[in-house]
Amino acid sequence: MILVLKPNTSEESPEYKQLCAYLTNLPSIATRVHTEVGAEQTLTELYLIGNTKALLVEDMLGLPCVDRVVRISEEYRVLGRHQNDDRPAFFDYNGVRFGQDTLNIFAGLCAVDTIENVEIMMKALQAHNLVCTRMGAYKPRTSPYAFQGHGKACLPYVFDLAGKYDIKVIAMEITHESHIEQIREALFHTGSPTGVMLQIGTRNIQNFELMKMAGRQQDFPVLVKRGSGITLDESLNAAEYLASEGNRKVVFGLRGMRTNLGDPHRNLVDFAHVPVVKRLTRMPVCIDPSHAVGTRVDSADGLSDIMHVTAQGIIAGANMVLADFHPTPSKALVDGPQSMLIRELPHFLEDIHIARQAYEKRVALAAQYQVAQ
Amino acid sequence: MILVLKPNTSEESPEYKQLCAYLTNLPSIATRVHTEVGAEQTLTELYLIGNTKALLVEDMLGLPCVDRVVRISEEYRVLGRHQNDDRPAFFDYNGVRFGQDTLNIFAGLCAVDTIENVEIMMKALQAHNLVCTRMGAYKPRTSPYAFQGHGKACLPYVFDLAGKYDIKVIAMEITHESHIEQIREALFHTGSPTGVMLQIGTRNIQNFELMKMAGRQQDFPVLVKRGSGITLDESLNAAEYLASEGNRKVVFGLRGMRTNLGDPHRNLVDFAHVPVVKRLTRMPVCIDPSHAVGTRVDSADGLSDIMHVTAQGIIAGANMVLADFHPTPSKALVDGPQSMLIRELPHFLEDIHIARQAYEKRVALAAQYQVAQ
Amino acid sequence: MILVLKPNTSEESPEYKQLCAYLTNLPSIATRVHTEVGAEQTLTELYLIGNTKALLVEDMLGLPCVDRVVRISEEYRVLGRHQNDDRPAFFDYNGVRFGQDTLNIFAGLCAVDTIENVEIMMKALQAHNLVCTRMGAYKPRTSPYAFQGHGKACLPYVFDLAGKYDIKVIAMEITHESHIEQIREALFHTGSPTGVMLQIGTRNIQNFELMKMAGRQQDFPVLVKRGSGITLDESLNAAEYLASEGNRKVVFGLRGMRTNLGDPHRNLVDFAHVPVVKRLTRMPVCIDPSHAVGTRVDSADGLSDIMHVTAQGIIAGANMVLADFHPTPSKALVDGPQSMLIRELPHFLEDIHIARQAYEKRVALAAQYQVAQ
Amino acid sequence: MILVLKPNTSEESPEYKQLCAYLTNLPSIATRVHTEVGAEQTLTELYLIGNTKALLVEDMLGLPCVDRVVRISEEYRVLGRHQNDDRPAFFDYNGVRFGQDTLNIFAGLCAVDTIENVEIMMKALQAHNLVCTRMGAYKPRTSPYAFQGHGKACLPYVFDLAGKYDIKVIAMEITHESHIEQIREALFHTGSPTGVMLQIGTRNIQNFELMKMAGRQQDFPVLVKRGSGITLDESLNAAEYLASEGNRKVVFGLRGMRTNLGDPHRNLVDFAHVPVVKRLTRMPVCIDPSHAVGTRVDSADGLSDIMHVTAQGIIAGANMVLADFHPTPSKALVDGPQSMLIRELPHFLEDIHIARQAYEKRVALAAQYQVAQ
Repeated sequence: MILVLKPNTSEESPEYKQLCAYLTNLPSIATRVHTEVGAEQTLTELYLIGNTKALLVEDMLGLPCVDRVVRISEEYRVLGRHQNDDRPAFFDYNGVRFGQDTLNIFAGLCAVDTIENVEIMMKALQAHNLVCTRMGAYKPRTSPYAFQGHGKACLPYVFDLAGKYDIKVIAMEITHESHIEQIREALFHTGSPTGVMLQIGTRNIQNFELMKMAGRQQDFPVLVKRGSGITLDESLNAAEYLASEGNRKVVFGLRGMRTNLGDPHRNLVDFAHVPVVKRLTRMPVCIDPSHAVGTRVDSADGLSDIMHVTAQGIIAGANMVLADFHPTPSKALVDGPQSMLIRELPHFLEDIHIARQAYEKRVALAAQYQVAQ
Repeated sequence: MILVLKPNTSEESPEYKQLCAYLTNLPSIATRVHTEVGAEQTLTELYLIGNTKALLVEDMLGLPCVDRVVRISEEYRVLGRHQNDDRPAFFDYNGVRFGQDTLNIFAGLCAVDTIENVEIMMKALQAHNLVCTRMGAYKPRTSPYAFQGHGKACLPYVFDLAGKYDIKVIAMEITHESHIEQIREALFHTGSPTGVMLQIGTRNIQNFELMKMAGRQQDFPVLVKRGSGITLDESLNAAEYLASEGNRKVVFGLRGMRTNLGDPHRNLVDFAHVPVVKRLTRMPVCIDPSHAVGTRVDSADGLSDIMHVTAQGIIAGANMVLADFHPTPSKALVDGPQSMLIRELPHFLEDIHIARQAYEKRVALAAQYQVAQ
Repeated sequence: MILVLKPNTSEESPEYKQLCAYLTNLPSIATRVHTEVGAEQTLTELYLIGNTKALLVEDMLGLPCVDRVVRISEEYRVLGRHQNDDRPAFFDYNGVRFGQDTLNIFAGLCAVDTIENVEIMMKALQAHNLVCTRMGAYKPRTSPYAFQGHGKACLPYVFDLAGKYDIKVIAMEITHESHIEQIREALFHTGSPTGVMLQIGTRNIQNFELMKMAGRQQDFPVLVKRGSGITLDESLNAAEYLASEGNRKVVFGLRGMRTNLGDPHRNLVDFAHVPVVKRLTRMPVCIDPSHAVGTRVDSADGLSDIMHVTAQGIIAGANMVLADFHPTPSKALVDGPQSMLIRELPHFLEDIHIARQAYEKRVALAAQYQVAQ
Repeated sequence: MILVLKPNTSEESPEYKQLCAYLTNLPSIATRVHTEVGAEQTLTELYLIGNTKALLVEDMLGLPCVDRVVRISEEYRVLGRHQNDDRPAFFDYNGVRFGQDTLNIFAGLCAVDTIENVEIMMKALQAHNLVCTRMGAYKPRTSPYAFQGHGKACLPYVFDLAGKYDIKVIAMEITHESHIEQIREALFHTGSPTGVMLQIGTRNIQNFELMKMAGRQQDFPVLVKRGSGITLDESLNAAEYLASEGNRKVVFGLRGMRTNLGDPHRNLVDFAHVPVVKRLTRMPVCIDPSHAVGTRVDSADGLSDIMHVTAQGIIAGANMVLADFHPTPSKALVDGPQSMLIRELPHFLEDIHIARQAYEKRVALAAQYQVAQ
């Protein structure tokens, strides 16, 4: 059970202390405090854990400071969408909103290779008014003998260039807790010209220690990608590790399931789960069409499979898109075959726009029909 | 290699005989004739099988009667889309066109239960100007002790009612070759008030004897559904069994893959393969959102998962939709939980319309960009 | 609920008629009769279907003719192993016993190609005192353009040679109901020199019409192979189709699951399900190591993977082994890469003997420990 | 390409320097040194990385200090079994040998709960002359709200008791690099009464940073468990991360694949890969029947599925067995349903003994047949 307190409730106030005293006396109930410091107000939520079935919502509503009460199911306590749960399904970071009703495009390099390519990419983004990108510095690779990314060495120029081209958020995969500190330091030394969304990849989603470390900080939001061989439920539970440690700025990413039933695509695209994640949790949902499809091949109607699955994700309400681009895919050090050409960017964006408009029309239509009933 | 002959080439003409004589003398080459009798013209294709690598396209083009030459890859000889293959990707049946550029909606009953429900359903279809439906008479069920459908007993009233409500094509699953004859007879006795598209389900896609029998007749087109636990390539090869026996009026259906990685959906939706099938073959592609999703549950944006995945299939170019409806899903004998209510039909159709419009815009946009390059 | 009647109960006896009259009066209960005519006695079982929960076992035991009463769970009514179910778990065919406590080896040709190879194979079997074999006449192939087996043309010489070399049972895949009649006729014309176990392959396990046809005859036992992409439960339900039509002489075959998680094997070997099938049903369990592994490659200890997985199946209680052999695998028309050489037969048999001895020791040991408790 | 140097080659010797100088001059070739300090001798291997195809084995054999030359394939450079690769396939740790020809049983607690249970367990092991065990202190759990293990707090008493009962090696899962140091410290403070084999579980196999940290130390051997949703090849590549950092004392564990095709088992048992791993690499292979099966249920022959799959792994050459036991499984905090009772230990061990004897007989028989050819 969650007690959502009135905005700006002070921990020093006598009412708050009275509330705490009351809760302490409840048998078999532990309390966990979550505080969200916003620009305008501070929100406090108290999680009651234990035998909460015996507690009545009405009783709890009568306690001092309590604004609302949400009875939660066992799973996804923090990130889950519970019955009568009107808590927000968005967060803001560095001037960009990430919510279940927004759409952000993260086109960029799967792996940073040269400073020139980073600049070409970012310049193109700015030219199309994009303020987000993906830039891989730490690359987990199947073989220990493959290129593993430039690591922290490339961070300074990546961040400088991001500042130069007005990029607000860079999605960047981390594979070790130390990368968080490296990113923080590089941002500090470059004067924080941009922001970073930490990305935890499919291989590390059940690396719970890394999840906890990313959850213990609230400077950076986290994009966590679904595990490619585990159930959706297991992946959502893994995302909850972040929130259980305090960081709720979490985006959930779909990137396809590993099975040869998906051939000739690299993965079996799972974007039918976009609405499922939005129903079960309050996380915005990201799709990664490049890794899901793994090839630039075109269909008979002149559209590539990557663009088709992107449109599929978006027409069902996806909130974020990761897409691999590269100035010369044939020379990319990682995942060249799935990278789009930079000159394809405007087509990609217009195509997304059509799909997004269709999604918005669909939602408006559904609202009309609901009213009519 | 395929020799596409000039329209209306007569098998009695001296040129045709000259051609055949020439081909007979080619070493290690067998010839197979396929004739397609259309309303306006008869098209003949000669398949050269064997060591065709030694044959030159130019030489073949110089032979009498030959209009075009298509060099084919090993797989999907008849249904495949080969290089420089401009053969048509559509067919007409009972006044309805099924092609890679059309869209037909088959809303209907998963399983026929009562004559009243059939009439309620068809009346609703007519009210929305739909001329196709799905009506299950023969139901393959996992357990031998479950309801197996009314079989041929229901055909007369189903066909009569179809005629009454202007239904042109009924998709109807068959599980045994004798069902083809039963359907033919029932159509004959009711005065052919409608048409039937034979449906071969996921459980029978590798029942090659049934495929061959459905391929040896050309009265009825065939909808073949992908196997839920085999690769796409294997399923396309299975569809080729139909065509290799002479029937090219084949629609390929996607209905999701069986794996718990798709939970909480009944199957892992595979509609990302819509453009893949259209690229590899010339078959129209059908999607079955009802069986893929298996539940009527709504997402947070007020749209059901079934409607979301339908939109996903359509925005990527799907050409046909099978959808389960029922007047009272809770009383349906088969698959009630996934059936939509009949009053949801107009919303479903409008939602599809939005997605289809988006698809058409996307194709037009892609054409513009291709011209621009 | 099953009422097992006293042996040799006559349908004409007054007691039997009294029993039937009583059952007819039970509300919401239908009765189905299954009669098993054996060499020494006739066994009759009455299946009570419907609301049997209200019936008491003690009441039923008091009815005339009733020997025993088995309360069954919903699934696998006939083939299942229910609580306190001491019905037999074996059957005899053409002098060979197939049971949950026997072991029969079916080495042979995956596909019959030449009469010479059939004779070489059978001669080798006789030399090693084997009385069973596998011989494929009807081959379902992924591509319609691949060799589909010699069909009924090869049956006469296959059966003649079987008689010459004292083969009692040939496992032979069928893909259409007409094959049953073709086999019956060929046996008749050759003077029934051998017996046939019909085999229904993984592609046809949910071809329920074929299952029913094989279930409506009792001349031939049936080996049904698990579906390679469906759950064990679904495959066991499919096997029940045979029994629900009257044929209980059913062997259940394991042959690996189709998933790239099994690489580099052709399939992910599922022989851990040997004890599961024996626990859930009364069917003997067959393993097919050749198709499961799909390659003859040797491991570091000098034993091939095929021999390793065979031993794995047997040490867990497998009752039947299908194994592909060929005089010259490189020339085999089907599945050559997985066929063993005929000179490897004695090693294969001795290896199996070691594993079977180990299984028997394990069972004896378990019995000791159970007594000790 | 690997140059195996003569034993006890000193890095200070002029021959060694001469060798290095030569290698430095080779174009496009980098060299990596691996030194294995044994009790009696020091072995040095030089890995030549880059364009080694141009190098001739004979030329390399003529270089100073070089004893043998192994040409390696691209994958699994260090752990792989390459052509003509007679490097050892075993290692020794704390007096226990782990090799592709040995068998070690690790019965124990999945998760340490109380000191009493640890002592009961270890006492039972000593009574049966077992010197290895499994003891989980750090437990990765799907939900953040589940019991996560006692962590370092339990290490002192676990190690003390291990010393008391002559346990030489404890397999203990780690989920973070800091756990290595915690274990090292706890061993130091307790006077190193036992040894620890670090275990990296299926969820962390592609947590490459953890793999690297476990690979950078050589104090503890590492058991790495296959990823439950990735291919065998990917998992073997992950194991190579350990070796590429210097630690070759690696055991590879099989524990079943996550797919509902394995139902009713918790996982689809993959022990058919035992001989595959031994063929492709030089790692000993461990099986984990408890996690693979996930239930204690018995089959019709009185043996539990866990014991059946254990026997399956061993008859195919498994070298190590992890098995969950618990004094009172119903009270176990983790995985109680799959834990065996301590009184079942002698039966379990005798059953394993039968299977191991069968394996040894099989290998001897195979050797006879190889000689005979």
